[in-house]
Amino acid sequence: VRTFVVVGRTATATPDFLLDDLPGTSGRLDVLVRCIRAALLVSHGVRRDVVVYLVLGGSRIVRIDGATAQFLRPDERSLAVTVKKALATGESKRGVSVADGGIDVVLAELGGATLWILDEGAPDIRGTALASTDNAFFVGDHLGFDEPSRKAILAAGAQPVGLGPVSVHSEDAIAIVSNELDRCQASRADTP
Amino acid sequence: VRTFVVVGRTATATPDFLLDDLPGTSGRLDVLVRCIRAALLVSHGVRRDVVVYLVLGGSRIVRIDGATAQFLRPDERSLAVTVKKALATGESKRGVSVADGGIDVVLAELGGATLWILDEGAPDIRGTALASTDNAFFVGDHLGFDEPSRKAILAAGAQPVGLGPVSVHSEDAIAIVSNELDRCQASRADTP
Repeated sequence: VRTFVVVGRTATATPDFLLDDLPGTSGRLDVLVRCIRAALLVSHGVRRDVVVYLVLGGSRIVRIDGATAQFLRPDERSLAVTVKKALATGESKRGVSVADGGIDVVLAELGGATLWILDEGAPDIRGTALASTDNAFFVGDHLGFDEPSRKAILAAGAQPVGLGPVSVHSEDAIAIVSNELDRCQASRADTP
Repeated sequence: VRTFVVVGRTATATPDFLLDDLPGTSGRLDVLVRCIRAALLVSHGVRRDVVVYLVLGGSRIVRIDGATAQFLRPDERSLAVTVKKALATGESKRGVSVADGGIDVVLAELGGATLWILDEGAPDIRGTALASTDNAFFVGDHLGFDEPSRKAILAAGAQPVGLGPVSVHSEDAIAIVSNELDRCQASRADTP
């Protein structure tokens, strides 16, 4: 399983945001919902082996599990509706669930996964030995990680890894990591 | 200069779409506006050396030039507003311009750029000798290229190039290509 944990420093943990002004009313939840698409959706389908966690303002967590997700659409508004409904009802539905808590709660759920934290200037992901089974990547939002989250992630054993010379949007970082993982998987499958 | 040309098979060439239902009313213009973000925006800024063309239903072209673009926001709705205004007024403004025509008009504008067409199963972009100056990438939408466009692009000398084993969304493809170009540039800068 591949896991992406996107840590939203300012993202609202309530459903009280406007779909018509997502960036202006949600603490930039738009950044996080775009990450759902990048992590889970490919041409003509859902990546069934991917789980996404959005950590909202340190107090609530939305989890989307590709294995059971249904009706996920790629456009930002539809994804925001999905998150809004989950936050409003608190119910688990179609692969989307909500829990109280912050980064510690997510870390406790990741079990034996190999942990990575995306960090500018860290050793390049190309040439890094990614795990053949479970990898979990921690991704900052447009402001980067807050220090307590970064410390908790590193204390849990996450290794810093970089994606190249330019600092890109969170969702692009996820696209680049996914491509690297796809290549590693394919290369393993080719090796007798 | 890096150029991305996104060919929208069904995307509307008129401003008569609803911002509240972009996928359902615009012929999937949502796919194309997300490509604007992936091509032009990075953390805390605009890529000034990037130009994006959106080819809308074969009959109209929107061009966004990073060198002069202003007030570009990353969220899908804001980008859709930008395209809507450009289509409604036909005016060039803040780096965004509109022209009548299809892929031929774009090809005629690309001058001496080295042309690439993203194609599943084509030789891998890693290990491909990208130009050190001007590269232009043709990107299909969610339906892939229509045959006349593909033929015109290939006839203009575009070389097919692939991005790995999984077929990804157009915007993710642009993120992956941009990362490759960033790495090539940095590696050239390091070579004495």
